[in-house]
Amino acid sequence: MPLSLMEQNVLSVLDEQGLIGAFRDLARIPSITGQESVAQNWLAQHMQRIGLDVDLWTIDVAELQKHPRFPGMEVDRSDNEAVGLVGTWQSEAHILTGKRLVFNGHIDVVPEGDHANWYHDPWGAELVDGRIYGRGACDMKSGLLAALYAVKAMRDSDFPIKGSLMVQSVIGEEDGGLGTFASLLRGHSGDAAIVCEPTQLQLIPAQAGALTFAVRVHGKSAHACVRLEGVSAVEKYLDIHRTLLQLERERNSEVEHPLLGKLPLPYPLNIGRVHAGNWSSSVPEELIFEGRIGVAMGESSDAVRHQFECTLANLAEADPWLRDHPLEIKWSGGQFESAEIPLDHPLITLCQQSMFDLTGHKPELEGAPYGSDLRLLVNGGIPAILFGPGDVRVAHKPDEHVDVAEVILAARAYIVFALRFLL
Amino acid sequence: MPLSLMEQNVLSVLDEQGLIGAFRDLARIPSITGQESVAQNWLAQHMQRIGLDVDLWTIDVAELQKHPRFPGMEVDRSDNEAVGLVGTWQSEAHILTGKRLVFNGHIDVVPEGDHANWYHDPWGAELVDGRIYGRGACDMKSGLLAALYAVKAMRDSDFPIKGSLMVQSVIGEEDGGLGTFASLLRGHSGDAAIVCEPTQLQLIPAQAGALTFAVRVHGKSAHACVRLEGVSAVEKYLDIHRTLLQLERERNSEVEHPLLGKLPLPYPLNIGRVHAGNWSSSVPEELIFEGRIGVAMGESSDAVRHQFECTLANLAEADPWLRDHPLEIKWSGGQFESAEIPLDHPLITLCQQSMFDLTGHKPELEGAPYGSDLRLLVNGGIPAILFGPGDVRVAHKPDEHVDVAEVILAARAYIVFALRFLL
Repeated sequence: MPLSLMEQNVLSVLDEQGLIGAFRDLARIPSITGQESVAQNWLAQHMQRIGLDVDLWTIDVAELQKHPRFPGMEVDRSDNEAVGLVGTWQSEAHILTGKRLVFNGHIDVVPEGDHANWYHDPWGAELVDGRIYGRGACDMKSGLLAALYAVKAMRDSDFPIKGSLMVQSVIGEEDGGLGTFASLLRGHSGDAAIVCEPTQLQLIPAQAGALTFAVRVHGKSAHACVRLEGVSAVEKYLDIHRTLLQLERERNSEVEHPLLGKLPLPYPLNIGRVHAGNWSSSVPEELIFEGRIGVAMGESSDAVRHQFECTLANLAEADPWLRDHPLEIKWSGGQFESAEIPLDHPLITLCQQSMFDLTGHKPELEGAPYGSDLRLLVNGGIPAILFGPGDVRVAHKPDEHVDVAEVILAARAYIVFALRFLL
Repeated sequence: MPLSLMEQNVLSVLDEQGLIGAFRDLARIPSITGQESVAQNWLAQHMQRIGLDVDLWTIDVAELQKHPRFPGMEVDRSDNEAVGLVGTWQSEAHILTGKRLVFNGHIDVVPEGDHANWYHDPWGAELVDGRIYGRGACDMKSGLLAALYAVKAMRDSDFPIKGSLMVQSVIGEEDGGLGTFASLLRGHSGDAAIVCEPTQLQLIPAQAGALTFAVRVHGKSAHACVRLEGVSAVEKYLDIHRTLLQLERERNSEVEHPLLGKLPLPYPLNIGRVHAGNWSSSVPEELIFEGRIGVAMGESSDAVRHQFECTLANLAEADPWLRDHPLEIKWSGGQFESAEIPLDHPLITLCQQSMFDLTGHKPELEGAPYGSDLRLLVNGGIPAILFGPGDVRVAHKPDEHVDVAEVILAARAYIVFALRFLL
């Protein structure tokens, strides 16, 4: 169906210049997970200027960690403030009766890594040939601000909305989901949510989980000159790595889910860090490796943890050294369950129709092989989809970037979707 | 032959109590390689009280590094002073004609590692059941002080020696040999040397070398969720490790040297450190591993470096990724050549006879699979042997220790040997 006059009117007041400027300003604040306070304060002021009701609060991390469903955390927050931020705009007339739509985006980004691997300054937000470069460009400051400016356009237009719009700017997504968990516990809820993760404006209603682990491998130190008298934790690791690659193959051999099954590797098992030893001429007495294992659709996180632990236990059983010196497995980082909504859910239809009316093309349905805050919303009773600008394939990498045109289009799509959802 | 009256007299004035006390005091100073100044100053004062001529000087590291035969260095010395220390006692009557005997011992020790792996305090010098525990106990503060107290005994006795005795307390042995290299360049030379490394009072006239390397493996980062689009530097390392184990096997398959050939693994290749990645959910874009490879008797260090580099080059040639992203190999740490003196050298006979007359047992001849400052002395024209208290098998490990009785016996052996050498 064609866009309504109201829709066209609201789209026409979208402040594209302001959106791109604000996004670039925010991208220049290096809000690495655990250090998001400056960015949150900046965004809170920005929300206030736009006219939203702003809730900016200090999250009591120690208290939340006691919660049985605490979603995990990897960074040390003992010295840093954890700041929650939610901006809301609601029509006075519909406080009790209107529907509530949540936009959710995380403001934390992963470390930029070695600057030598970047052509563009990771904190420069350089605009080149219609693309903006920088850590967090697609994952996911562009989506977060596209949502905020969609809300601003609705607020700036003359038509009163029926219901309420909320933008949750959350911290600690990359290492578990602290910010979304805290926002939900604080009562910031809704009837549906769009998580503005980079999907290239395709639509993701099903998402695998990911569980972060750290494993300590014990060796026995010795001077290198008598290395046969030691046990190298690195040599013990070689078999472990091979075994985990094999486990990954098994877990991905027969994936029948209509969306996840189409991916080349739906449930990756990645080893991201390996650290061993402290001296060239000593047999390394310890190795620690950290990584993540995917959680399949419909599979419980507990089942995955159990399978991972059993696999390593079986390996250790066949190795006299490891039998006597057990591997220490910790599930200390982000613990992302898998989550999905039915493929015929009205949210999906509405989103597809909005995009079709804007562009003439219907977004594809895809499954995501990565964890996100989606599962906290869906498993917490709020139907949600991932839908946002940018390509996840350039996330967490040097020269992360996003197309300006896609950011604008995302904001336009959010406007049409929101107007129709709140009707 | 029985001990002479003079020998018995000098042995009788050996200050055993003083030796053990001084050794424990020194063992409590954590003189980790790169941070030896406090220990060197302490020992210089001690040498002065004993009555030696003390040369304590600041080593110009930057200048020495330009020398074509600089023996390598791993620690960063830019912020720390490098201190040379040599104590000498010579008979006035024999300055020109007498022989000169050098005792050489390093005061630097390797890091103590995780205290949780120690039962005894690594810096406590605890004396339990006739053993003293601590980092550096056998490697090699006990040998160094046994030599110093042997010289003290000769000085304290009434018999004038014919010639001179020198104790070189050297830094930076563990990472290359900076202290011995600097002492020799400064003119502290002799006609023979005993390096007081832990040999359990067996006698080592032949010693393999050891070359320290650091290798950078390049990968390609990617978000873990699309890990097939990255290249894990850790996965690339698995093959490299296996290839290096194979190289070690080849280099140790047919060792015919009369002393080294008897060892279970004469020329070990050890990987001591492995570090890769910075985030659980990123494909690690880089791995650095550090280790050491043995140098065979009679083999040049250059030949070993060449073989190591060719082995990795062949591996890389068979792997398209490594072919395009070459491994970076650095020989930046300690570069220990192999060294030996003939098995019928008079030094060996003299040392064996001295021990036989003291104990009724002749020390065994052994070959050492580790590098030490021996090669700087031997290859610099000073015939030398390794001969000292303690077991190298507990060096570089938690609960390193030495038997008090063996330290005393070492000092006694040094006395008899020195008196006979200087006759």
